[in-house]
Amino acid sequence: MSAENAKRVGIVGAGQLGRMLALAGYPLGLRFVFLDKSKDAPGGQVGEIILGEFGDAEKLRELSEHVDVVTFDVENVPVEAVREGVTRPFRPSVDLLEKAQDRLLEKQLFQSLDIPTPPFAPVDSLADLRAAVEEIGLPAVLKTRRLGYDGKGQRVLREGADLEPAFKELGSVPLILEGFVNFEREVSIIGVRSVSGEARFYPLSENTHREGILRYSVAPFEDRTLQGLAERHIERLLNTFDYAGVLTIEFFVADGKLIANEIAPRVHNSGHWTIEGAVTSQFENHIRAILDLPLGDTTPMGHSAMVNFIGTMPAVEDVLDIPGAHYHSYGKEPRPGRKLGHATLTSQSRTELMMRLEHLLNLAAE
Amino acid sequence: MSAENAKRVGIVGAGQLGRMLALAGYPLGLRFVFLDKSKDAPGGQVGEIILGEFGDAEKLRELSEHVDVVTFDVENVPVEAVREGVTRPFRPSVDLLEKAQDRLLEKQLFQSLDIPTPPFAPVDSLADLRAAVEEIGLPAVLKTRRLGYDGKGQRVLREGADLEPAFKELGSVPLILEGFVNFEREVSIIGVRSVSGEARFYPLSENTHREGILRYSVAPFEDRTLQGLAERHIERLLNTFDYAGVLTIEFFVADGKLIANEIAPRVHNSGHWTIEGAVTSQFENHIRAILDLPLGDTTPMGHSAMVNFIGTMPAVEDVLDIPGAHYHSYGKEPRPGRKLGHATLTSQSRTELMMRLEHLLNLAAE
Repeated sequence: MSAENAKRVGIVGAGQLGRMLALAGYPLGLRFVFLDKSKDAPGGQVGEIILGEFGDAEKLRELSEHVDVVTFDVENVPVEAVREGVTRPFRPSVDLLEKAQDRLLEKQLFQSLDIPTPPFAPVDSLADLRAAVEEIGLPAVLKTRRLGYDGKGQRVLREGADLEPAFKELGSVPLILEGFVNFEREVSIIGVRSVSGEARFYPLSENTHREGILRYSVAPFEDRTLQGLAERHIERLLNTFDYAGVLTIEFFVADGKLIANEIAPRVHNSGHWTIEGAVTSQFENHIRAILDLPLGDTTPMGHSAMVNFIGTMPAVEDVLDIPGAHYHSYGKEPRPGRKLGHATLTSQSRTELMMRLEHLLNLAAE
Repeated sequence: MSAENAKRVGIVGAGQLGRMLALAGYPLGLRFVFLDKSKDAPGGQVGEIILGEFGDAEKLRELSEHVDVVTFDVENVPVEAVREGVTRPFRPSVDLLEKAQDRLLEKQLFQSLDIPTPPFAPVDSLADLRAAVEEIGLPAVLKTRRLGYDGKGQRVLREGADLEPAFKELGSVPLILEGFVNFEREVSIIGVRSVSGEARFYPLSENTHREGILRYSVAPFEDRTLQGLAERHIERLLNTFDYAGVLTIEFFVADGKLIANEIAPRVHNSGHWTIEGAVTSQFENHIRAILDLPLGDTTPMGHSAMVNFIGTMPAVEDVLDIPGAHYHSYGKEPRPGRKLGHATLTSQSRTELMMRLEHLLNLAAE
């Protein structure tokens, strides 16, 4: 692959995921072009950028014309605009992206593939909500069907009196009610499948959220039964959509069983540990997959922990003082609740890892 | 560290070393600006570039004004221009850079620090050469004192008749004659020291050259005695120059002893394996060192082998088909004898590594 005929990858959205995709893809001799509203977005700092809205089909066409394949960083890229504007292969699957954007379609998809989910019901009126609560019981979680992320657009309903205010707050858009899962832990699996159908799976990561935002992940979460189950679930999704790229499923673990919470048809925050903690990172494997290159080894190297920096970044020198620490700034302006960066710890010993993790969590405290 | 006050690093030269420095430095939240003649140089593909000659003091001043610290990719950056033009800290040491650019000063430096070298003598005339051969014996190697790299500007003298033609060919510039070392192997050590004096060392790498160009490296080369000796040698150099950054010494091993061949006051081709094969890469540690951040763990993770791609790149899919392979293209146009990229293999088993290395060497054959 020479400089002249270097393959080019278009990325819709130049957030941290796009930035890390580009940093992982440069060694493969690729060039990257982003579409984003902001010139100084994390990805724009490390690649070319076309300024524009994700939903602008004309801009998507312009991006397409500069590249060999188009992928995305933001999950909420409007699928109609993609179908209209993108003139190159769009990977992963726009069909799965569409379902992932709507919690109702997503839950129905899980159901159709025998992937266990919490009980759920669509809610378009207060009457619907009352009927759904009757069926599902309380506590339950009322969520907007679309555009929810990092805990936004959700209300936990604990008693009858919660229904009306929650519906008033969220009910201007279509909703879904989901049974509240009293989980023991949250885990996620990341799978990757290439254009020609080769598939690999990372080990489960155990994830800790607060206020709906991922705070930290520890991997591998070693449980052979759950690992096998998660792989079978994700493999069904990958094959159903003839998927090319990285796919993530977040699960609750309750009574020792997996209950699917949501999918992300892309690289995922709970997989950032793979940059240092696996033979091949999720970012490199996504790039390999969408270009139909052989996939890389997903084996973990020792134990890893990833901590998100939200709202503020700790001093880089304090983080790097922790043995085995790797610091990742996304080059963003600080803002409350914003994911600005993360750090990953690796160690051959899980005990040592957990001690260092405690230290790092103290640094990350807002 | 926010986007607004992100630290900026200037790199003189936008070759593959600069490119890999930038790729390692972005996660630390840094920005990179290169000075290079060519807009499409490997570094220019992943960072900002100022177009200009390395030896142009005005351009070095312009680069300085955009950044917080200046480092370099090319070893032959003219030191006078650096002293005149660079207005920010220039790291590593310009004094050691000056000595590293001249094989005579370099050998004298080794001598002054009790680091064993082959016998050597300056050669400015045919008479000097005859006298030097008298003293050192044959075979010996006649080299230009300056601007030699990758085996260029060298002639091996095997018999008396070789002297005159070799001198005719090279003698328009100052030369050095070095005793020919009948070595068992070649190894290199990479050390890193931060502004405040913290130092770390990578394990020795065993290097195989052909026609003066590094073909492949295998690390770690495990020999406790030689490792300790190499660390003491490099530590003396680091401390003497109050050095900040990565430093490399290439040694011959002869009769089980280390004989210093040359120094590179920068990240080194024989350390590319550290990207995947060590907890912290030489590139990240160089950046940490020149910004006075805590240095990262240099421990190797299993066994690694790095193979250079010279003149042509093998197909990326053939390389990635080898388990544990990582591909690095520098985004350069192919040209005979040009280093275009490399691949690194990692494995927990040295036997497995050597089998895969053989496969990779076949792919890399020109």
